[in-house]
Amino acid sequence: MLIKHIVILSLSAGIFACAAAKAQEIIRIAVSVPSADHGWTGGIDFFAQETKKRLESHHKNVQVLVKTAIGVNDQVNSLEELFATQRINALVILPYESGPLTDPVRKIKEKGVFVTVVDRALSDNSIQDLYVAGDNPGMGRIAGQYLIDRLGGKGDIVVLRGLPTVIDDQRFDSFMELIKNTQIKVLDSKYANWKRYDGFKVMQDFLGRFPKIDAVWAQDDDIALGVLDALRKTKREEEMFVVGGGGMKEMIQKVQNKDALVPIDIVYSPSMIANAIELTALHYTAKLLIKGTYILDSPLVTPENAALYYFPDSPF
Amino acid sequence: MLIKHIVILSLSAGIFACAAAKAQEIIRIAVSVPSADHGWTGGIDFFAQETKKRLESHHKNVQVLVKTAIGVNDQVNSLEELFATQRINALVILPYESGPLTDPVRKIKEKGVFVTVVDRALSDNSIQDLYVAGDNPGMGRIAGQYLIDRLGGKGDIVVLRGLPTVIDDQRFDSFMELIKNTQIKVLDSKYANWKRYDGFKVMQDFLGRFPKIDAVWAQDDDIALGVLDALRKTKREEEMFVVGGGGMKEMIQKVQNKDALVPIDIVYSPSMIANAIELTALHYTAKLLIKGTYILDSPLVTPENAALYYFPDSPF
Repeated sequence: MLIKHIVILSLSAGIFACAAAKAQEIIRIAVSVPSADHGWTGGIDFFAQETKKRLESHHKNVQVLVKTAIGVNDQVNSLEELFATQRINALVILPYESGPLTDPVRKIKEKGVFVTVVDRALSDNSIQDLYVAGDNPGMGRIAGQYLIDRLGGKGDIVVLRGLPTVIDDQRFDSFMELIKNTQIKVLDSKYANWKRYDGFKVMQDFLGRFPKIDAVWAQDDDIALGVLDALRKTKREEEMFVVGGGGMKEMIQKVQNKDALVPIDIVYSPSMIANAIELTALHYTAKLLIKGTYILDSPLVTPENAALYYFPDSPF
Repeated sequence: MLIKHIVILSLSAGIFACAAAKAQEIIRIAVSVPSADHGWTGGIDFFAQETKKRLESHHKNVQVLVKTAIGVNDQVNSLEELFATQRINALVILPYESGPLTDPVRKIKEKGVFVTVVDRALSDNSIQDLYVAGDNPGMGRIAGQYLIDRLGGKGDIVVLRGLPTVIDDQRFDSFMELIKNTQIKVLDSKYANWKRYDGFKVMQDFLGRFPKIDAVWAQDDDIALGVLDALRKTKREEEMFVVGGGGMKEMIQKVQNKDALVPIDIVYSPSMIANAIELTALHYTAKLLIKGTYILDSPLVTPENAALYYFPDSPF
């Protein structure tokens, strides 16, 4: 008799929950991101998929559609197709480039879709409802301060930059501003396109031209891996150390293992896409006002705190 | 026989879910906020309680402890008691005042507690992990731009300020900066302490001294209600209009009903506390990195969009 009662209660609760879920409107959140063209975007795709799973399991009325694009044109086409064929409530987008994506996103916004922009901004900030990014000027300042402290305010360094974008300028300008009154000399700086092989090539060139280098600011972990390749090839690993950025697993592990070549890292975590999707969903699931600007810190990773920034399941 | 199978499945699922919940660590998030000393803090308390209910029903391993304080000393004591008697993972705090709360929060932070600060900042920003606030300079600019447009760049206004705090300075300074090259003249500005009665008294004084006023910038809806009381008492409601701020229900309704005295409002929603608690919880429930700064927009409320900003269940 007791067992029978429990059984009935359990069934009733189940039926009640299903009825409640069915009564809710389905919320569709589209997520448009670059495909994994380097390690960091691989992390973006991973965290987008992980957030989709989490949100859809917690909220029966939330659907997250993740679309990866292999380039600017593909992302524009994918947005147009998405919008033509699906009813969506919100769009979370990490634009490949600012300029070409601005008008396509504006068109979607004009149809009443909530727009969240991540990392690389659009050319017109008024389109976005929410902007989520890392602290790019902070990355430059933290790297600069570490180099000043470590080198005692004096030394010869080389700088590898990313791509000519607002983000890259912010990192570079705040770094240069910080070191300008020190005796740290930038022997040269060149773009390495946030790619390992380009980092290798640029660093090979630097190594050929400069007989003494005290440190490398690579500002990105993919580029830093290429720099390490070049150092190994020329057997100059003991001459200098390398400061990357991003929070790539391999680099976090090197920091944790007190690798002399990679003493620190600076976080610019692709998990920012998870923050962006979660906040966007809260606009619907909790009816929260979430319009605004959310800038994630870029903390310094040291051997002491590296475990906090290591995500074993992430590809990045 | 079929029914028996369904019953068994339902029971098994229930047992499995309970076992999974029990295996998780209990996450305790303390929320320390001012008690409802004016309408806006009443909204803060409402959204804190609502978020507690939502989080605890979605996540069996999350506990939210909401503590309201009636003043600076009470908040300090409440923090000390909380920390002495409870194990907490995170603290979300809206400090009564910056100075006196800084050291008590620092002590809690030093024990490894995650700290989220809302609205009124601490005197030392390095203590916080996450900062959530509205856009105070934006409130001043939006109000200023509305007055410029509405008055055609020319007229006599009075300004009622809040309390002498960073937030109030940000609103006031950005407002004054925007109108400085216009022919809008500020007849006088005075503090009204974010309180209705103080707004009434200050406005009575202004009305006694200035025979012609074109508009009032009250910058806060509690103060604006006091201004409206004073206008009614002196029967000068048709002479001017009032711009408040906050997004109070009564004011949003006046905007929606095209009340000539209250043509617009500017959002500074107490639901920011909900954003702060939700993000803090995501640090544990989704293992997200959430350190950073999240500034919510302060949108202009017009009759066309007022419905978006009306929360029927909120006391504010």
